[in-house]
Amino acid sequence: MDPYKLTLTQASRLIHRKELTPLELLESLLKRIDSLEPQLHAWVTLDRDNAITTAKTYSKEAEKGELRGPLHGIPIGIKDIFYTKNLKTTGGSKLLSDFIPPYDATVVSKLRAAGAIILGKTQTTEFALFDPAPTRNPWNRKHTPGGSSSGSAAAVSTGMCPAALGSQTGGSTIRPAAYCGIIGLKPTYGRLSRHGVIPVSFTLDHVGLLTRTVEDAALLLETLAGQDPLDPTTYSQPIPPYRTELNNPTTPRIGIPREFFWNHSSNEVKENIETAQKRLADNGAELTEAKLPRSFQAVHAAHRIIMTTEAATYHEETFQTRKEDYRPKLRALIPAALLTPASAYLKSQRIRNLFIRETDSSLRNYDCYLTPATPTPAPEGLESTGDPAFNAPWSFCGFPTITIPSGLTKNGLPLGIQLVGHPFDEQHLLQTAHRCEKVLTPKSEPHDTD
Amino acid sequence: MDPYKLTLTQASRLIHRKELTPLELLESLLKRIDSLEPQLHAWVTLDRDNAITTAKTYSKEAEKGELRGPLHGIPIGIKDIFYTKNLKTTGGSKLLSDFIPPYDATVVSKLRAAGAIILGKTQTTEFALFDPAPTRNPWNRKHTPGGSSSGSAAAVSTGMCPAALGSQTGGSTIRPAAYCGIIGLKPTYGRLSRHGVIPVSFTLDHVGLLTRTVEDAALLLETLAGQDPLDPTTYSQPIPPYRTELNNPTTPRIGIPREFFWNHSSNEVKENIETAQKRLADNGAELTEAKLPRSFQAVHAAHRIIMTTEAATYHEETFQTRKEDYRPKLRALIPAALLTPASAYLKSQRIRNLFIRETDSSLRNYDCYLTPATPTPAPEGLESTGDPAFNAPWSFCGFPTITIPSGLTKNGLPLGIQLVGHPFDEQHLLQTAHRCEKVLTPKSEPHDTD
Repeated sequence: MDPYKLTLTQASRLIHRKELTPLELLESLLKRIDSLEPQLHAWVTLDRDNAITTAKTYSKEAEKGELRGPLHGIPIGIKDIFYTKNLKTTGGSKLLSDFIPPYDATVVSKLRAAGAIILGKTQTTEFALFDPAPTRNPWNRKHTPGGSSSGSAAAVSTGMCPAALGSQTGGSTIRPAAYCGIIGLKPTYGRLSRHGVIPVSFTLDHVGLLTRTVEDAALLLETLAGQDPLDPTTYSQPIPPYRTELNNPTTPRIGIPREFFWNHSSNEVKENIETAQKRLADNGAELTEAKLPRSFQAVHAAHRIIMTTEAATYHEETFQTRKEDYRPKLRALIPAALLTPASAYLKSQRIRNLFIRETDSSLRNYDCYLTPATPTPAPEGLESTGDPAFNAPWSFCGFPTITIPSGLTKNGLPLGIQLVGHPFDEQHLLQTAHRCEKVLTPKSEPHDTD
Repeated sequence: MDPYKLTLTQASRLIHRKELTPLELLESLLKRIDSLEPQLHAWVTLDRDNAITTAKTYSKEAEKGELRGPLHGIPIGIKDIFYTKNLKTTGGSKLLSDFIPPYDATVVSKLRAAGAIILGKTQTTEFALFDPAPTRNPWNRKHTPGGSSSGSAAAVSTGMCPAALGSQTGGSTIRPAAYCGIIGLKPTYGRLSRHGVIPVSFTLDHVGLLTRTVEDAALLLETLAGQDPLDPTTYSQPIPPYRTELNNPTTPRIGIPREFFWNHSSNEVKENIETAQKRLADNGAELTEAKLPRSFQAVHAAHRIIMTTEAATYHEETFQTRKEDYRPKLRALIPAALLTPASAYLKSQRIRNLFIRETDSSLRNYDCYLTPATPTPAPEGLESTGDPAFNAPWSFCGFPTITIPSGLTKNGLPLGIQLVGHPFDEQHLLQTAHRCEKVLTPKSEPHDTD
């Protein structure tokens, strides 16, 4: 098997057993990138030379049995909003086209400490907001890969790297992962440090993880989670060994909040989620219809107010002097959002607190909610990166979510389900996701890459 | 000695030793109230009958050696913004003139659990903001007692009750305590629950404690501190036994941020603080001039933006239908503050975070800062409750502060010093305050009460 096809966990195991060297893995990935990148545009910056130098050093270390950590010699893609020391970080914007960060984002330095190799920076929408990246969907290049973590999703789904960092403020990890047929994990707000990540919205920003298996997401989460004094929103909750508990045989109790999600789903998505439900039930899961809390109806409006006002406030000063360097969607958004009254912002925060409390109590009877990951498969065209409506509520309340591939449309586009778990209980969420993965994930690969 | 003259600690000790009954104490306080209240207007509601019934029961229990807690049988005054179950809570407003709360504020129920008797509700400015209470300064009735905890300060300073609850968003505990010649303690933001307290500003509101000695403040803090699941801003920091450590002989290192405070103080206040410094130095304290952090210059503006927009947002809905029931200052403030853009609010919050970090680092070389508690003694007239400029910065960053009486003006009005301590280290703050109290507090009593 070509090493680029290995999952993160498989590659790590082979490197630890000296059956694969970091350099062999990297060379296979670079070859894959060279063949696909001209069609897909997943990368802003490929750090080829540094990656090769590092892979050579790490190969020698591995040969001697000196392993830096669980990710020793594994190349990882980093969304281009994460600071990478001495490696250009553009945020997908002309404004930062020459910006070389003086330090690593906390999660990037944790990756390095675990032995990972920073392969390069992946495409993002402008400042992780609405102006799309040039990346194309590997399953059909006429379609968006989703956003804002567009490059990370396309790269992981095609084997350009086994895993990548993304981020999510609305639906920026779950949506592109689902559109590209891979695993996307958005852990609990406060689980992963955002220090050194260009902010969209302080209140809503999450680091996201993109992989091809649930086990890989668990490995990455174990490696990156934890309190960071440089991000005051992180918590000191214990970090369990997620991978060792993945095969827990407990029957998952799954709540289905049909009303909102079925009303807003295309027929193909509805058929897909119903098939998924049936398979899960046949496989022993307990599925029951769940009611969403009352405050859910205000969630999308309040989410948008918080996100846009925080983003606009962050950009206000730069916007005054460099308006023309912003792309059209953000250029229109900033001045509009600056007109939001503080009382609207504060009421939105109040709705957020209420929704957190109500969801905590609604979800108490279940291990997780199950919903479609997106209302439709990846839309045609690159003007929009699709609709985050199914993901934004969980970014709003900060509960952890994961998407698992659940089939293909007639036209061969991936669909995914989304699970929503309890705060700081990624363990149960990953267990249920692992069970879903076994019965739902189709054995197929992206095909519009030539 | 008349029992009303006893401090909280003295009264508690005598009750524990069966040398005083709760009923004797209450009767002495009620007699004092009956003689002074017509001149001072410290109370909105006096819960005379319930207090007598409770004091009788508690007297019998004490007689049998059955003590509910450290405050068994001690009557306490409660600012009229704290919910008291079945006891009217007006917030100083016409809008709530008939409001009977269905539950106790967390700190009120903690008082009850410790054996305290809720004596009544003390006067507050309207919704703890700018429209003054009818309360007069017991040292000179032509002068304001300060606000917003006007009634609590006047009641404690005249022996109507040994201690009272107040609150502080700008300077609402420290200022009236200093104007009335007593101890005011504003613990760290997050130390005391605000659940069941009518909010001014969620970000800035603190519960405050008013007593006549530092030891009493320590006793009250011990009784009330702690995490409350109903107030998500409270912390689970350990609560040391503050009283037993009060006489710690360590030399306090005190920083004096002269520049801002001297520039804004009257001559009498400057003379008083310089005398206080000299006495403390003679008494072994190390005093050195301290520099305030750069962000201090933006603190008052940012504090006002956060306070007024949060307050206006809280009142917005009621204001739409009952505008005419608000008093003039709040009636003018609400519509103005509703025009504040969210970006101004968010920037003010950013300044707050910066000021917290910078103050944390500036204060590292000292046990505390020492400043005058107020720019002047209590101003003449009841139209304004005075200037919170010396207190608001510490409400803004949430660091604990305490005021200790430090002398009288030529005209017989009290002056106080203010100490600013480290977050969640009320212990050292109380130790230093106790030392200050020994060398600074004049032996005199309010005299304009007849």
